[in-house]
Amino acid sequence: MPPSPVAVSAALNVVEVAAVLAFAISGLLVAADKKLDAVGVCIVAGLTAFGGGTVRDVLLDRRPFFWVERPQWLWGVLLLCVAAMLVLRARHFAVTRKAILWPDALGLGLFTANGTQAAIDLNLPAVVCVLMGVITSVFGGVLRDVVCNDVPEAFSDHRPYAICSFVGAWALIAAEAAGWSLWASLLVATALTASLRLAAVHMNISIPPWDAGGGGK
Amino acid sequence: MPPSPVAVSAALNVVEVAAVLAFAISGLLVAADKKLDAVGVCIVAGLTAFGGGTVRDVLLDRRPFFWVERPQWLWGVLLLCVAAMLVLRARHFAVTRKAILWPDALGLGLFTANGTQAAIDLNLPAVVCVLMGVITSVFGGVLRDVVCNDVPEAFSDHRPYAICSFVGAWALIAAEAAGWSLWASLLVATALTASLRLAAVHMNISIPPWDAGGGGK
Amino acid sequence: MPPSPVAVSAALNVVEVAAVLAFAISGLLVAADKKLDAVGVCIVAGLTAFGGGTVRDVLLDRRPFFWVERPQWLWGVLLLCVAAMLVLRARHFAVTRKAILWPDALGLGLFTANGTQAAIDLNLPAVVCVLMGVITSVFGGVLRDVVCNDVPEAFSDHRPYAICSFVGAWALIAAEAAGWSLWASLLVATALTASLRLAAVHMNISIPPWDAGGGGK
Repeated sequence: MPPSPVAVSAALNVVEVAAVLAFAISGLLVAADKKLDAVGVCIVAGLTAFGGGTVRDVLLDRRPFFWVERPQWLWGVLLLCVAAMLVLRARHFAVTRKAILWPDALGLGLFTANGTQAAIDLNLPAVVCVLMGVITSVFGGVLRDVVCNDVPEAFSDHRPYAICSFVGAWALIAAEAAGWSLWASLLVATALTASLRLAAVHMNISIPPWDAGGGGK
Repeated sequence: MPPSPVAVSAALNVVEVAAVLAFAISGLLVAADKKLDAVGVCIVAGLTAFGGGTVRDVLLDRRPFFWVERPQWLWGVLLLCVAAMLVLRARHFAVTRKAILWPDALGLGLFTANGTQAAIDLNLPAVVCVLMGVITSVFGGVLRDVVCNDVPEAFSDHRPYAICSFVGAWALIAAEAAGWSLWASLLVATALTASLRLAAVHMNISIPPWDAGGGGK
Repeated sequence: MPPSPVAVSAALNVVEVAAVLAFAISGLLVAADKKLDAVGVCIVAGLTAFGGGTVRDVLLDRRPFFWVERPQWLWGVLLLCVAAMLVLRARHFAVTRKAILWPDALGLGLFTANGTQAAIDLNLPAVVCVLMGVITSVFGGVLRDVVCNDVPEAFSDHRPYAICSFVGAWALIAAEAAGWSLWASLLVATALTASLRLAAVHMNISIPPWDAGGGGK
């Protein structure tokens, strides 16, 4: 029996909420590193949290946005930022920087599952669904880095990031094609993406560079 | 009696026109500073002038854009750029840089009122309306700085900018909730935002830094 | 007799396909120069190839995107990137950098014709159609440069680029206003834009700087 539209919608929302918080924290720390002012910290955190999903929704022409339908999440991110600025001190940063790996990997997995599923619901071709999963999970961070005037980490640090999302998104499509339930499929895609990311970081795996580039200058 | 849709539309248009010009001049001067070529100057001026409102309209899924409905404004900004490049000389720049504070503050106020009102017209939640006001007024400048390869001034110069827009947008919502007329509400929001910005600059008020960031590196 | 909608659509598609490949190669080489990792190379190539057309379609609210309707093109660009990374070596780069001028100029012409025509089909004002042609042809490269953390070449290298697109787009509008057939008009606009670009580069023509900027600092 296919899950009802309501169940699909509920599943996507739970996933989206958890991912939003994880990414907001990630944006917060990068903004702090860049010494943005309090306003910049809040906007960059919000952009990281909502940016990927919003770009996906603009591309898919979906309205209302998650954060329009549930404006309490805008308040949530704002409060998170204010709280962080009151509580977090320099000595917490080394710890937090290490701790950020986990919410960030989880956010990557959650947004991959959520973004891919949103495109599947619209019956788009598989490769487009995968692309939407990657955009949802990676473009929050890309916008964060573009606004902070960095080359996006996801494109340049030679650590698997977008590629974990790419694999996880295909896993979601494969699982649903194999007849798995929606929840199981979303769970597997999220877990696979997050695990790949964590494994890559802990095992120090790096994406092979394009050595042609070495003499390109 | 609520204002007719035509009156609302007329009010918004007058406001938008004035703001477009103010922001185009602001973009023009930044582009000149960055030594962009003539084409870059025109595009950056246009992006600063139309960028915030266009991002808002894309997010709100409003069509046609202001500048599609009234294409003469594209010509207007183009002519403004050509005229500025013919007339403005280096010795005018110090003066202009000081003078820019005023149109920029006015544009901030006008776009805040206009962007917030556009979302109110769609019956969106208050916090989303405020966010749209901030995006409309601030994202032209953000796009300008991103394209010019700077960290957006609005996020990093520790001078109140987006926060003035934030306050002005809430004032608009409060005024309309209190039953004020549309015109009075728009006027108050515009004046409040612009005054806050000017006061902040002249009184040298700065946003408290997040001191945790100091030892973050 | 006006061309049938099917013929218009076919003409636009042929043009779009050729332009996508030309721009993907251009993005590829810039990404290599920036030493992005393999993932970054693919995403930047895709962004350069599809970015301009996607921005145009978002602005015009056209769906589905070209690359959603024909997802094989996403695969095409991905394969192109993988092949390039396997085959291209540093010693090829000087040659390729020179060779890139041609596909890039062709892409500029093709996207100008295609983007302008898409807006003409929607009966938009002429200046908006021209702007759409310029956005389609130039914004892929602008997004590429913004993501790679450069001031967009198109705005700052003082070589005619966007301005060739601007002239070509007006030529398309003039040709159609003069009653030329769709194919002839598209061909003329493409050829004119590409020729202007190639002529400008080979004859070392540069856009006059805004000399006022010289003393602006």
